Amino acid sequence: MKEIKEIAIIGSGRVATHLGTAFAKNDLTIRGVYDRDADKAKVLADRLKATVIRSLDSRIKADLIIIAVSDDAVASVARKLSEDNTALVVHTSGAVAMTVIPSYLRRGVLYPLQSFSYDKKILWENVPFCLEAGADSDVNLLGTLAQRLSTRVFLLDSAQRKSLHLAAVFANNFANLMFEFAEELLDKAEIERSILHPLILETANKVLMQRASEAQTGPARRGDLDTIRAHQDLLGDANGLRHIYDLLTEEIYKRSQHG
Amino acid sequence: MKEIKEIAIIGSGRVATHLGTAFAKNDLTIRGVYDRDADKAKVLADRLKATVIRSLDSRIKADLIIIAVSDDAVASVARKLSEDNTALVVHTSGAVAMTVIPSYLRRGVLYPLQSFSYDKKILWENVPFCLEAGADSDVNLLGTLAQRLSTRVFLLDSAQRKSLHLAAVFANNFANLMFEFAEELLDKAEIERSILHPLILETANKVLMQRASEAQTGPARRGDLDTIRAHQDLLGDANGLRHIYDLLTEEIYKRSQHG
Repeated sequence: MKEIKEIAIIGSGRVATHLGTAFAKNDLTIRGVYDRDADKAKVLADRLKATVIRSLDSRIKADLIIIAVSDDAVASVARKLSEDNTALVVHTSGAVAMTVIPSYLRRGVLYPLQSFSYDKKILWENVPFCLEAGADSDVNLLGTLAQRLSTRVFLLDSAQRKSLHLAAVFANNFANLMFEFAEELLDKAEIERSILHPLILETANKVLMQRASEAQTGPARRGDLDTIRAHQDLLGDANGLRHIYDLLTEEIYKRSQHG
Repeated sequence: MKEIKEIAIIGSGRVATHLGTAFAKNDLTIRGVYDRDADKAKVLADRLKATVIRSLDSRIKADLIIIAVSDDAVASVARKLSEDNTALVVHTSGAVAMTVIPSYLRRGVLYPLQSFSYDKKILWENVPFCLEAGADSDVNLLGTLAQRLSTRVFLLDSAQRKSLHLAAVFANNFANLMFEFAEELLDKAEIERSILHPLILETANKVLMQRASEAQTGPARRGDLDTIRAHQDLLGDANGLRHIYDLLTEEIYKRSQHG
């Protein structure tokens, strides 16, 4: 096979919907959609001009089968696929090893590193795609496919993808938690939260230009103990936020050659 | 006085340089620059077509004196100013109370909430300015002045500014630390760090549109214990990063109605 032309999608959630829509727009044929819940499958299938796949028992006619279900369901869905399938079978998860797909299938991973919302348009050309496959020829097929959507295609093995997924938790979920703490402090002081928006954008934009370790500023970086003490007073004793403040301040302080 | 026209600047660091340059470009006269180090004062004074102020002992001729020195030096500099000064005296610090400036001076605060680098151009119109002054008429003077540079001017008292400064540490320094951890994980796995840049931008952009608590995603938010366990295995036992991962994961988990 020279190219992937026909795709079947298992799942009908955010990743299934966004990926399916993007491929359909880029001249690929979505042949079928499967979901445990046939009604949900029908909604997505109609949107993608595909048919509903009723069962996973028999061979699915497609060049590529994309398993886009929740991380903990990938393995069990993959095991239900018939051994008769000749299509390449990939999942879309950052946290799941390729090998949860049985080795009697042609297997791989197509992981778009993005946080998907239903209501937000995806700018696909900037989305990093992380690829892996059991066979080199399948890596090439996936690479050609991913390049239809994105200019940023990376070849990562399962161990690397696992590290990347953990790094993404820090850069996305934990950074977002820091924004959440900041908003709560503003709420409490009756300051409108938009006041911090320019600084948040600046913080993100800075690490596109230089390493985060070089971009760091603030009292812990400067070793400004008076300001740190004033912050601690404001936070009060023995609560969760104070504990997190102390821990992260200590970490920055240590890294800044004061310690 | 109806308007501030002539400014003196104490300090010659980043904030002094950026603010002085911006005011000079906006039709204000920078009359003088003082720095303990007269050579440094001369460099900035030349740039701003100002004279070097040799001593703080006598009255400084200006409508506004801006103290732009390090946080821990603001109080001692302010106390050195002669009682003969009639100018409004402000500092530019988020963490320092207005009252460190003696009450025999007309006093206030002009705090630009931005992370300044020497080499990066400031887009002033988006920079939030936080104002405070001892007299209402001086609040108005500062407001008119700040609006020459920025569309976002906020009136905050010292207690609010202190809370804002702490919130900025979370949103800027601590979020940046999360990016730093992410980069280290990528380095270790030999993945180029630009792979996370789109996600970092997306994370920042999301909180401009919705509250951070609503924007949260990821394994802790979903209550996906398998993925959390896999991350913990990857981080290993009993090290600093593992401790931070556990603490922040627990915090998100608690907030997500799984706990």
